[in-house]
Amino acid sequence: MEHLNQAFAALADPTRRGIIDRLAQGEATVSELVDQFDLTQPTISSHIKVLESAGLITRSRRAQKRPCKLEPDGLTAVNAWLERLRANWERNFARLDDVLEDLKVQPFPEEQKS
Amino acid sequence: MEHLNQAFAALADPTRRGIIDRLAQGEATVSELVDQFDLTQPTISSHIKVLESAGLITRSRRAQKRPCKLEPDGLTAVNAWLERLRANWERNFARLDDVLEDLKVQPFPEEQKS
Repeated sequence: MEHLNQAFAALADPTRRGIIDRLAQGEATVSELVDQFDLTQPTISSHIKVLESAGLITRSRRAQKRPCKLEPDGLTAVNAWLERLRANWERNFARLDDVLEDLKVQPFPEEQKS
Repeated sequence: MEHLNQAFAALADPTRRGIIDRLAQGEATVSELVDQFDLTQPTISSHIKVLESAGLITRSRRAQKRPCKLEPDGLTAVNAWLERLRANWERNFARLDDVLEDLKVQPFPEEQKS
C-alpha cells in the first residue's frame, strides 16, 4: 500500500510523468533528460530519485553512465488498482442494468391480479 | 495537465483510494463513509473535498443528504494516460523484437561472402 502511495504521488508531477513517457521509448541518461527537459541537473536528479524510490524506474548498475529505465512492475501495480476499480464499477453498472431489466419484465401488481 | 496532477495526488492517499473503492460500489453519504472508515467527520469531509476538486467524485445537489458518487471522467483521464504509456512501451518492445528478428534472419557477413 505504501508502494502504491509513493507511485501515485510520484506521478502527480508533470515533469516526472514526462520522464516516464520518455523512458517508455527506451533508456536515457540523466544528461539526456537534462537536455530534453531543459531543467538543471540537480532538478532532474531529484525527480529521478523520487521515481526510483517509488519503484517506477531503475538505474542500470552495469554501465558507467547508469541510464534510467522504466520499471514495468511499478506501473503494473498502479494499473492493477485501476483495473480492479473499473471491474467493480462495471459490475455495479451491470447490477443496475439487471434491476432495470427486472423492472421491465415484471408485470405491475395490478396486472398480476387481473 | 493540472487536472491529472490533482487526480494522481488525490490517489496517493490510502483512505482516499478506499473511498473511491467504496463509491465504485454505489453512492454513499459522508455519514456512511464516517461509519465505514472509522474516522472523524471532518477528516472524511476533507478527503471528500480533495477528491471532489480533483474531479474524481461529485456530490449530488438534489438530495438533502448530498451523497458522494464516483465521477468516471476523472478516472478516465488517469486511465488514458496509463493506456498511452503502455502503448508506447509495447511499441518499443515490438521494435526491439523486430530488431532481434532481423538479427536472426540476416546471415552473418562471413556467410554472405561464401
